[in-house]
Amino acid sequence: MKALVYHGPGKKSLDERPIPKLTAPTDAIVKMTRTTICGTDLHILKGDVPTCEPGRILGHEGVGVVQQVGAAVSSFKPGDRVLISCISSCGKCDYCRRGMYSHCSTGGWILGNKIDGTQAEYVRIPHAETSLYPIPAGVDEEALVMLSDILPTGFECGVLNGKVQPGSTVAIVGAGPIGLAALLTAQFYSPAQIIMIDLDPNRLEVASRFGATACIDSGHAEPLAAVMELTGQTGVDCAIEAVGVPATFELCEALVAPGGVIANVGVHGVKADLHLEQLWDRNIAITTRLVDTVSTPMLLKTVRAGRIDPARLITHRFQFEDVIGAYDTFSRAADTHALKVIIEMS
Amino acid sequence: MKALVYHGPGKKSLDERPIPKLTAPTDAIVKMTRTTICGTDLHILKGDVPTCEPGRILGHEGVGVVQQVGAAVSSFKPGDRVLISCISSCGKCDYCRRGMYSHCSTGGWILGNKIDGTQAEYVRIPHAETSLYPIPAGVDEEALVMLSDILPTGFECGVLNGKVQPGSTVAIVGAGPIGLAALLTAQFYSPAQIIMIDLDPNRLEVASRFGATACIDSGHAEPLAAVMELTGQTGVDCAIEAVGVPATFELCEALVAPGGVIANVGVHGVKADLHLEQLWDRNIAITTRLVDTVSTPMLLKTVRAGRIDPARLITHRFQFEDVIGAYDTFSRAADTHALKVIIEMS
Repeated sequence: MKALVYHGPGKKSLDERPIPKLTAPTDAIVKMTRTTICGTDLHILKGDVPTCEPGRILGHEGVGVVQQVGAAVSSFKPGDRVLISCISSCGKCDYCRRGMYSHCSTGGWILGNKIDGTQAEYVRIPHAETSLYPIPAGVDEEALVMLSDILPTGFECGVLNGKVQPGSTVAIVGAGPIGLAALLTAQFYSPAQIIMIDLDPNRLEVASRFGATACIDSGHAEPLAAVMELTGQTGVDCAIEAVGVPATFELCEALVAPGGVIANVGVHGVKADLHLEQLWDRNIAITTRLVDTVSTPMLLKTVRAGRIDPARLITHRFQFEDVIGAYDTFSRAADTHALKVIIEMS
Repeated sequence: MKALVYHGPGKKSLDERPIPKLTAPTDAIVKMTRTTICGTDLHILKGDVPTCEPGRILGHEGVGVVQQVGAAVSSFKPGDRVLISCISSCGKCDYCRRGMYSHCSTGGWILGNKIDGTQAEYVRIPHAETSLYPIPAGVDEEALVMLSDILPTGFECGVLNGKVQPGSTVAIVGAGPIGLAALLTAQFYSPAQIIMIDLDPNRLEVASRFGATACIDSGHAEPLAAVMELTGQTGVDCAIEAVGVPATFELCEALVAPGGVIANVGVHGVKADLHLEQLWDRNIAITTRLVDTVSTPMLLKTVRAGRIDPARLITHRFQFEDVIGAYDTFSRAADTHALKVIIEMS
């Protein structure tokens, strides 16, 4: 089969690889129909993810058709259309029992990281019964690719951890795909304000169409002053960090009102300054989270009911033969205006 | 009347001052019977609290007898024995309605800070109806001095914010009065382990008597390695920071298990390093809080029922005439082994 393989920092190619086989009775083999590229794949290609070794097939998102299942898999059978979760979970360990699938003792984020991933014609899914979801009839399969990672990430790490409530004031720092996923899902809870902050006017224009009540171009306006003016000088109930650098996290520290939450979504490579001398008495919470994908069934229901349209995040489509071109388009998002790119198998 | 007055950094004296008068219909004048000294009073004397100006009567803790009430006060009458909360709260503003009394728009921590405090023969209490608590018959009045600040602080900022639950593993960094108050109140919830960490063997000996399941002398053992060994290399569900310096906060970052909470109680003067590069995917929460004293009625019930004995925190007693001696004993705690000192009015 064809597969997109990581060959060490800066190196990838579309290679010929053997079709994966079942290795445990809880495995399934899925024939991919659609996948996508995540910002995390770009991190791997920069050499920032040491757990991902050269030779690894990349990708942790996508939809497909079950090809073969192990003897212990009774919920799925060959021919079933399935959504693949970016998080593999056994459903049995202490962390899984607490709903912390991301910390599953034999799973977590392993696809396209510690084991071969979804940017291939076939993929082996461990713990298949608790890591795949059936695709309901009548639901746009392409849109569901957004439910493998990005939508639950924005929702769980940003909106749920950030305790967005009716009437809340929310600031989302970073209007990339993850920030926009938080923007879309925050609206489930009818907040009073959702203020988007970014340097890219194009992304802010998208945010405005997606329901932001205000957009701050931090290249031209001072975001702290602007948010304070928008919130009557009190700050926000919920500041969602969706970039992953110290400056944006520290901006969230300044934006949050007493009693509020900073919900970190960004993947950070270095430490940030925590201004406890200003925050110790402000009754705030700071949360971090690797998406657990506990909300996937809930999100599937919202898509099916038409309460959210995740296909709005898709800007480009490629055939798998041109996956290298897809990476090029996705990695030059400032120029190409790419959000999420869909890669279709032939 | 006699009052302990702050005269700028390093300066205090027992002065003659006029007895306070009612200035608003919601005020009460309380004749003090007992007060105490807080670590925060020492911070003020170091010049660390700019809101507290020279000329201020110090103190935000104590019990006394109502002497006079304003026209709007119907819950208390002269002669009532009362517990004074360190937090004054109007009960009416947006923050008070959310139970965030510490951020009351016309109150919060003002006693012995922005207005004259309790280290005096009489004190004016604003918002008396929602800032005083009646002392139940048969309860040891001296023990209740611990309920003005230290016990609700350890409980709300440490134990409640830290989500201590039956079976939890808890580490408390700092075995001073606040850390010990967290230790006492954590036991309401039957945690599996409470590990105390301090540099002072005397305080650890007290912690051991107060119910700690393990004590780590961080002057002689490496606390991170010791906690990991005690928790099967997983870390703790709840790390309570009860010191207020970067090193102890950063220790908590290393101690917390995936899914756990760092509950900050310490008063910090400088920023700390937040290691987001290690914490971003660990599903943790960090909380900060100035005590709201929302739990005071609950704590009063636990004292009355004999479920907790806050008098155990009292190590020394002084007459008010010797309040300067009380400060000396309290500020040299490493030598005097002082925890909380009671100051009695004659």
